[in-house]
Amino acid sequence: MKIHGDLASGNCLKVKWTADFLRLPYTWLPVDIMQGESRTPEYLAKFPQGQVPAIELDDGRTLAQSNAIIRYLARGSSLLPDGAFIQAKIDEWLFWEQYSHEPYVATCRFHMVYLGKSKKSRDPLKVERGEKALDHMERQLQGRTLLVDDAPTIADIALLAYTRVAHEGGFDLASRPNLRTWIARCEKTLKLSCRADRHA
Amino acid sequence: MKIHGDLASGNCLKVKWTADFLRLPYTWLPVDIMQGESRTPEYLAKFPQGQVPAIELDDGRTLAQSNAIIRYLARGSSLLPDGAFIQAKIDEWLFWEQYSHEPYVATCRFHMVYLGKSKKSRDPLKVERGEKALDHMERQLQGRTLLVDDAPTIADIALLAYTRVAHEGGFDLASRPNLRTWIARCEKTLKLSCRADRHA
Repeated sequence: MKIHGDLASGNCLKVKWTADFLRLPYTWLPVDIMQGESRTPEYLAKFPQGQVPAIELDDGRTLAQSNAIIRYLARGSSLLPDGAFIQAKIDEWLFWEQYSHEPYVATCRFHMVYLGKSKKSRDPLKVERGEKALDHMERQLQGRTLLVDDAPTIADIALLAYTRVAHEGGFDLASRPNLRTWIARCEKTLKLSCRADRHA
Repeated sequence: MKIHGDLASGNCLKVKWTADFLRLPYTWLPVDIMQGESRTPEYLAKFPQGQVPAIELDDGRTLAQSNAIIRYLARGSSLLPDGAFIQAKIDEWLFWEQYSHEPYVATCRFHMVYLGKSKKSRDPLKVERGEKALDHMERQLQGRTLLVDDAPTIADIALLAYTRVAHEGGFDLASRPNLRTWIARCEKTLKLSCRADRHA
């Protein structure tokens, strides 16, 4: 399998973490989004929407959308436990992440880290919704070890990607103890690496 | 099963269409979002984020997120065919719908239909991204019967919800023949009803 990804992107890290945790062999093909590498004719020929991350199976089939990819890679593993309803609760988190978390928490970080703009100049609507998303997670983690199960699932991986760096987008993790504990637990359990140090 | 939904919401219609197509018994519990019925203390006690649609199983367990719900309801049926990769391609559409389609196509329609505002006053960024989403679908449907398979899947249901009414948000379906053919095919195959006329 080939993974086309940018290590600066949380969406790409989800795929890397899932593949690493499951010890799936892969070749990491770096795509520098900020340098326009997902918009070259070669890349668009393969992925017409310029999607990053994207995977290519050994038979040439391709798949995009970070959460669709990690759900596919995790099938049959402890990251996606058997059981229709537990998988549905995992899906609930995955869809919530893409609709109610990433567009606010990740974009505020993009604004500050990649565009180099100030915390004060963030879009107030995005800040409000990002705060709301983090508050929701903080409440949901009350009395829980992880988001869905006692062992990590792809719901934890999907939410971890941008939550662990939310402070870089001007959000306060210090005042959210459940989130901090959960982040530390995930990082330890998943033995996270953000370097492209594993190749098939 | 109880379905809490608002027939004015495409996300809710996805759940109704899936349950109807599969002849699943349910009780439809109407929630008028515009009248604040998803923000009453009673509703929030059950669904703390005020999510609509949401389902309640007979044993009291609850599930939100339209695409998580339809994926759960469709398990083992023709709407979610067996096979890890075909399911992943369906997921790819489901996540794309929530991230790259609904936030633009549906919100422009909301702006015009529910807020009664003019086509000209739509957010230009949302218009641009909505056009891009519809163009992507138009291209993907070239030479294809349906989005993923020859028979309808939950990918068709999820995308149909807001695409079929995209013109109400100021988008041009007339110039997109593949989309028009696909919409007609889906509506016929799925025998769509937008009325709350089936109850368990």
